[in-house]
Formats: sequence, C-alpha cells, structure tokens
Amino acid sequence: MCEANAYFNSNGQEVLFMEAVDVIEPYEDGLKLVDIFGRQKFVKARIKDMTLLNHRIVLEETAGFKHDSD
Amino acid sequence: MCEANAYFNSNGQEVLFMEAVDVIEPYEDGLKLVDIFGRQKFVKARIKDMTLLNHRIVLEETAGFKHDSD
Repeated sequence: MCEANAYFNSNGQEVLFMEAVDVIEPYEDGLKLVDIFGRQKFVKARIKDMTLLNHRIVLEETAGFKHDSD
Repeated sequence: MCEANAYFNSNGQEVLFMEAVDVIEPYEDGLKLVDIFGRQKFVKARIKDMTLLNHRIVLEETAGFKHDSD
C-alpha cells in the first residue's frame, strides 16, 4: 500500500500528524487529508516536501494554524 | 514502489505531465517534481488533488504557467 505519514516540522523536530494518508487536497486556506480508513483532518498548512518512496509528507504551518480532527 | 503519475487537468481532459514522481516540493511560485530516476521538472502549478493509493497527482496551473523539463 502506498499511503504516507504526514509530519509537522516543529522547532527542528518532526511530529507525526496523521498516519496512512491516502488523499491530500486543498481545502480553504489549508489542506484536507484523508487516511486509508476514510478519516479526515483539516489543517491550516501547506506541503513543505513529500517523498512518496519514503511514504513521507512534511507539512508546514500557515498563518492561523490549527487543526480539527475527524 | 510508491511513485505516482502527475497529470494536468486541461479543459476537462487529464494530460500526463510526469511519470513515476517521487519527490514534490514547493519551488518559487510553483512546484519541483523529481521522478524515481532523479529527473526534475519545475512547473508553475499547485496540487489540485492527490490520491496516493491510486498513484495519482492532479496539478492545476497557476498564473504564468510554463514548465521547464530536465
């Protein structure tokens, strides 16, 4: 399976934000992430970098960062 | 392998832009894409949606669209 884990880079440390992400799409001024189980998270962030072979997405907070789970 | 193909949505048709994309990161006002062979493309576009399980990235042109290959 080719899902990826999404991390935030916070003060030089990477913090796991969501596992097993399948879908990523823009949502308002941030992103919508959907995992392989259909769970959604909305986050005021943008993609900082992504390496699909490593199953790895690094997110970067945008202004007004907050996230709503599920 | 978990690379994905990148498409543009052009007048309702999807046109393949780059195969076997591994890395995606922001670059200036667009994106840098790198395939599994290390070839790079720079494009004035943003991600419209992405479904990793389907190995599929759909790009959307931004103002001043053009692309430079290799």
